[in-house]
Amino acid sequence: MRTKDKRYIGIVLFPDVEELDAVGPYEVLAYWTRTFPSDGYSTLCISRNGGMVTCAKGLGIHAHSSFDQAPALDVLLHPGGVGTRPMLKNEEHLEWVREQRTAVPLMTSVCSGSLVFAAAGLLRNRPATTHWGALSELAKLDPTTLIDPDARFIDDGDLVTSAGVSAGIDMALHLVSRLAGVERAREVRRYIQYDPAPPV
Amino acid sequence: MRTKDKRYIGIVLFPDVEELDAVGPYEVLAYWTRTFPSDGYSTLCISRNGGMVTCAKGLGIHAHSSFDQAPALDVLLHPGGVGTRPMLKNEEHLEWVREQRTAVPLMTSVCSGSLVFAAAGLLRNRPATTHWGALSELAKLDPTTLIDPDARFIDDGDLVTSAGVSAGIDMALHLVSRLAGVERAREVRRYIQYDPAPPV
Repeated sequence: MRTKDKRYIGIVLFPDVEELDAVGPYEVLAYWTRTFPSDGYSTLCISRNGGMVTCAKGLGIHAHSSFDQAPALDVLLHPGGVGTRPMLKNEEHLEWVREQRTAVPLMTSVCSGSLVFAAAGLLRNRPATTHWGALSELAKLDPTTLIDPDARFIDDGDLVTSAGVSAGIDMALHLVSRLAGVERAREVRRYIQYDPAPPV
Repeated sequence: MRTKDKRYIGIVLFPDVEELDAVGPYEVLAYWTRTFPSDGYSTLCISRNGGMVTCAKGLGIHAHSSFDQAPALDVLLHPGGVGTRPMLKNEEHLEWVREQRTAVPLMTSVCSGSLVFAAAGLLRNRPATTHWGALSELAKLDPTTLIDPDARFIDDGDLVTSAGVSAGIDMALHLVSRLAGVERAREVRRYIQYDPAPPV
């Protein structure tokens, strides 16, 4: 049930989700929504059964809610990871994604989460991106998708897709900027001291 | 028990650890050590009792091992977060950190993890850094510490400290470079598509 005073951002957890795909955006979005509750948003992690998932690199992370018990979402964020591959033929999951699309104003993906969106039919004739290693898979899953291999993320209105893994941090900051303004996003960036300086 | 064929990198989890402080480095280090096992390292998360911790922004993360049952570490990584503040007067934890210092060749921290190292006496007359918001606390905890407020991370041999939150990703890439070479670190960077482009 969507109410006027609280909007929900749900990050989807599943077996073999890539750790940073989920936790990078979680850090950005949960810091924002917990520090500035008057902005009206709340962030939670959801999984099919609401329990723990073991991520792609072996970390165990708990969901806050099951799919069924989660509140109606205003933003859904679908991470990637090797666990997306079985999802591409998992009709139960794809149907859930399609249902979400009919109800959720803003669907977003990180990394190979875009493949799941493509398999569910969400990327027909839409601009999108994904992890560099999944670009050809994306083109095969939906040849109508307008793939930009160089974008860090692509905001196409009710759909935002990102490049691989760490790109989710940039995309999440963009979401804060879009939903609460650029100054708020800059505050979040400052809190996580996001002045990246890759040493190699 | 340290053996010649396997070296362990332990990331310390504790209540109210900052999510990205731990999971950013975990992504980098676990991708490296799982993809290239012949490099001889393994990455695990450890907590005092080996169970789940609830992080600073509400995410539940499981440790792989308790402090007592963890293998002897070659690298210890102490994240930060608001949960470090009670640790500064928690003699049991500080004594554990001191014991680790006597046995672990490479002690590293992210963000306010440096405060814990300072409280344990590890930063006496050593160059170090921390989250921008914790610089004055660090100076008070140990006035002999040579604080560099502008460094992304500081490698002082057997001690590496980092700036806030997201700086742990850069520091972890540096660790890969130091322990397995710059080309390996570049492979990890490419996998996580770490071409950061903060949008705000």
